[in-house]
Amino acid sequence: MNDMIKMLFDHRSIRSFQDIALSDDQIEWIVKSAQAASTSSFVQAYSIIGIKDRNKKAELARLAGNQAYVAKNGHFFVFCLDLHRLQMAAQMEEIQEVDIEESLSSTELYTVGVIDAALAAQNAAIAAESMGLGICYIGGLRNHLYEVSSLLKIPDYVVPLFGLCVGYIDYRTDKKQRLPMEAIYHEEEYMSDGKMCTYLRDYNQDMVAYYKQRTAGKKKDSWTQMMAKMLVHPKRLYLKKFLSEKKLPLQ
Amino acid sequence: MNDMIKMLFDHRSIRSFQDIALSDDQIEWIVKSAQAASTSSFVQAYSIIGIKDRNKKAELARLAGNQAYVAKNGHFFVFCLDLHRLQMAAQMEEIQEVDIEESLSSTELYTVGVIDAALAAQNAAIAAESMGLGICYIGGLRNHLYEVSSLLKIPDYVVPLFGLCVGYIDYRTDKKQRLPMEAIYHEEEYMSDGKMCTYLRDYNQDMVAYYKQRTAGKKKDSWTQMMAKMLVHPKRLYLKKFLSEKKLPLQ
Repeated sequence: MNDMIKMLFDHRSIRSFQDIALSDDQIEWIVKSAQAASTSSFVQAYSIIGIKDRNKKAELARLAGNQAYVAKNGHFFVFCLDLHRLQMAAQMEEIQEVDIEESLSSTELYTVGVIDAALAAQNAAIAAESMGLGICYIGGLRNHLYEVSSLLKIPDYVVPLFGLCVGYIDYRTDKKQRLPMEAIYHEEEYMSDGKMCTYLRDYNQDMVAYYKQRTAGKKKDSWTQMMAKMLVHPKRLYLKKFLSEKKLPLQ
Repeated sequence: MNDMIKMLFDHRSIRSFQDIALSDDQIEWIVKSAQAASTSSFVQAYSIIGIKDRNKKAELARLAGNQAYVAKNGHFFVFCLDLHRLQMAAQMEEIQEVDIEESLSSTELYTVGVIDAALAAQNAAIAAESMGLGICYIGGLRNHLYEVSSLLKIPDYVVPLFGLCVGYIDYRTDKKQRLPMEAIYHEEEYMSDGKMCTYLRDYNQDMVAYYKQRTAGKKKDSWTQMMAKMLVHPKRLYLKKFLSEKKLPLQ
């Protein structure tokens, strides 16, 4: 195992940062690392918005569900799916919006943009970690996309997908144990339900033991219990409507 | 700039591999690196299917639009969005499918799964590159999802999103120049159209010069021309229907 893989294995989300701003060089390395990731057919269908302004960060922290580390960190990045740039490219080539609407509103191009944004974000995360910084993804930005969108002046065809806190680590949490490799990795074809079930039961035992030790017996949920609880309360059902209003009806 | 960032900057897609299979150790490091990536609320909503079988790889290469490197490489991974595992988790907790259908069929959970799969894939790609191997993402798998799905026995709630070829490099292509950082990175809020336009014009000049040199004058397209051409021919419009049939109507 080489040093890079060791670093990847050692990843954990950091939720407590020192109040030290990243330098412009650090920001540039992170963003350029993001850009170096693969992109589908060279579309580069994402944008990154960097937030330094303390009031704006505080507001985003509130919108993300009062997550203090969205306000206090070295830098806050918002990763967006961006088809607006593509629409502008077409406009510069004198193509009417109506002639590209079918593409822009397709589930395919939405999927491409989400993948592009996530590949870029993961490169950004790794670049930050390679500099000894900590990171935390913030899916909570999707709790209030209308407000986030208005705060960041997000145009049509653009969707803030998630945030990324980066900063000097104040407190380093434990690593959470992932599903056993066997439950994620299938050979030649998708595995049988029987096999999957066995792996999930093993994992449940491991997770119960982990939480028992970590929370002094307070948290006892197994992974399947946590997932079942989550699924019975659907989240962010307004997303479909928000996307339609951003001209992305996912057709 | 550290070695890790140097490696990220040096990425390019490899489309010609030697006919040498990866070792089981290499596959394990790659998959476990993928698993070490962040995951939204710990859902780990993706699966990876590894393909060694030569006939299956040849068939996938055909389905992806006759891309020879899908057949000839060290290992072929298929990254899938996976909500089936979550449905099984709920079932193990004696929750009825009907009680979690709203969650499972939501645009939100689809978005979460696509992000999870892409973060994992980018870690896999970086782990592979850190071992001196080359990689290439294969979005072309989405050309024929019904056939791919049947070949890999993909259940409901699971979607093959893209492939990842990994292998010993036979021929190393040039790096393609990305958009200028200024066209991707916005400060405090989304930039004005005027600014974006200026950056795209600069980029067009760079790309025209790059292609001119690389193709001995044969390819002359600017980036905005390439994007405009792509957008007037909508791709994979059946995806929406395919997702619905996999019980993912994106509501």
